[in-house]
Amino acid sequence: MHAITIPEPGGPEALVWDEVPDPVPGEGEVLVEVVASAVNRADILQRQGFYEPPPGASRHPGLECSGRIAALGPGVSGWNVGDEVCALLAGGGYAQRVAVPAGQLLPVPQGVDLRQAAALPEVTSTVWSNVFMIAQLRPGETLLVHGGSSGIGTMAIQLAKAVGARVAVTAGTAGKLDRCAELGADILIDYREQDFVDELKKATDGAGADVILDNMGAKYLDRNVRALAVNGRLAIIGMQGGVKAELNIGMLLGKRAAVSATSLRARPLEEKAAIVAAVREHVWPLVAGGHVRPVVDRELPMSEAAAAHRVVEESGHVGKVLLIAP
Amino acid sequence: MHAITIPEPGGPEALVWDEVPDPVPGEGEVLVEVVASAVNRADILQRQGFYEPPPGASRHPGLECSGRIAALGPGVSGWNVGDEVCALLAGGGYAQRVAVPAGQLLPVPQGVDLRQAAALPEVTSTVWSNVFMIAQLRPGETLLVHGGSSGIGTMAIQLAKAVGARVAVTAGTAGKLDRCAELGADILIDYREQDFVDELKKATDGAGADVILDNMGAKYLDRNVRALAVNGRLAIIGMQGGVKAELNIGMLLGKRAAVSATSLRARPLEEKAAIVAAVREHVWPLVAGGHVRPVVDRELPMSEAAAAHRVVEESGHVGKVLLIAP
Repeated sequence: MHAITIPEPGGPEALVWDEVPDPVPGEGEVLVEVVASAVNRADILQRQGFYEPPPGASRHPGLECSGRIAALGPGVSGWNVGDEVCALLAGGGYAQRVAVPAGQLLPVPQGVDLRQAAALPEVTSTVWSNVFMIAQLRPGETLLVHGGSSGIGTMAIQLAKAVGARVAVTAGTAGKLDRCAELGADILIDYREQDFVDELKKATDGAGADVILDNMGAKYLDRNVRALAVNGRLAIIGMQGGVKAELNIGMLLGKRAAVSATSLRARPLEEKAAIVAAVREHVWPLVAGGHVRPVVDRELPMSEAAAAHRVVEESGHVGKVLLIAP
Repeated sequence: MHAITIPEPGGPEALVWDEVPDPVPGEGEVLVEVVASAVNRADILQRQGFYEPPPGASRHPGLECSGRIAALGPGVSGWNVGDEVCALLAGGGYAQRVAVPAGQLLPVPQGVDLRQAAALPEVTSTVWSNVFMIAQLRPGETLLVHGGSSGIGTMAIQLAKAVGARVAVTAGTAGKLDRCAELGADILIDYREQDFVDELKKATDGAGADVILDNMGAKYLDRNVRALAVNGRLAIIGMQGGVKAELNIGMLLGKRAAVSATSLRARPLEEKAAIVAAVREHVWPLVAGGHVRPVVDRELPMSEAAAAHRVVEESGHVGKVLLIAP
């Protein structure tokens, strides 16, 4: 088969579409004939040599895919060859075939195109596990989403609105904020022009955000703590703004607030399976009901993954950039 | 009646036993004839002028008491004059009488002396809300308790052992560590002689603590994050080591860990009532069954509160120091 390989870490041109051995599904795994994958920021870090795939994972990038089951490994039940699925992967999505633990498979939700389903596994799993399982956003609470027009952001807006929360977003252009508003965002903050703490406080009578979903890490830590409401929960899922920063414990304690930080890829199989099961139970009905939909910026041939990475690195997109397998 | 007053903030001598007006129980409150109160670190901060009582609270120090119900305010049901109780207070425990919201009352647990019951409300509420409600310590997990011989520490050891967790403690003398061991602590760390991160890692095959209960704040933040296990939860309840410190978000994210910080006194009535109800449901049966007991260092007359404060400030105690009302 063909897959994207990374002979040497580097810029987008480091991604090489090459002939590689087919994966063989192990115990509890299925082989998926890939129809589409999608770009995640972790793929860019991996391409640059900053994110080693976890032990046992495919060396090829790609943390999610959609496709059809081509074969069942030993000990798999509940799935059949030919089933249309999408899946959360530890790697290997940028390929024509990938072996996936059965616990990370999801059926394609009713009403969603098989290709577009590749846009769902990472963002639904990340948002559900962080905003709902860890931070426990409740109806009537306010969620602040940084990078509201990203793949994660567009899903967080929709899911939070679907459960009856109020949503604030930050983004860097008026066009992106418009797209967030179309998805339901209530409070729109241009982080290039406005201070998000001030704007959020103004829009919430001084209360702040009950939950913040953050991809910036160090750069936003102090402002995020200031933006939290009493009993607020800050969920960090990325460190695009650095790794270490001063934490004002006094302010955190005064607000009885909490900071969590997670990544999905490094979780053991049983934790991923538990998250995927929760997504299937709670998110899939919202997708099937038309309340939540995949937001796809564009589709590119998988062999042109370099061009797709350029789009994401330049933040020229809204939602997900898909890679279509030949 | 008489109560401890603080005419001017300062050292222990700032505490003055003086004649003051009797409190009047408001809507939903009861009047308790105090038998005993107990010293908390927050009382010392209040005496020094660093901890203003929350709005509406008594100006007298004292965050817990035991005694008998002397009168019921309007709208109170489920309690009777003469009932022996202990109570979580927003202030006013260092007095002969105090008005208490009914949601903060607890019956004296079976088998516990009425005076000793004054040692229970703050530590059980703080430990249960942080270690169990927020950090969700589970059987088989490891809890690290800083200051294992303090009032909080001695209760945290007992409760964690009672639910089947493994307990590590830090303390500053061999004698205090011995007392922690008598209460059930499994891993004893002398923080003056040993590095608690190293010792904990050694004792857990490198895994670290699933939950840490911390009273040091800034001074221990980085070491606490290093000492956490994967999926670990750091619960900060004090800042004896300062208010601001660098947080290694990268390490937190790599461990999928979380940091919470709370205080009990500032919580609104309904949150306090929910915690007290949970304590009554989950902790009281353990006390009545003899699995968990109040640990009392000594009893002093309430008029000698200054001497009691000196003991606690010099960390010369194990467990709680009680103040007995005349």
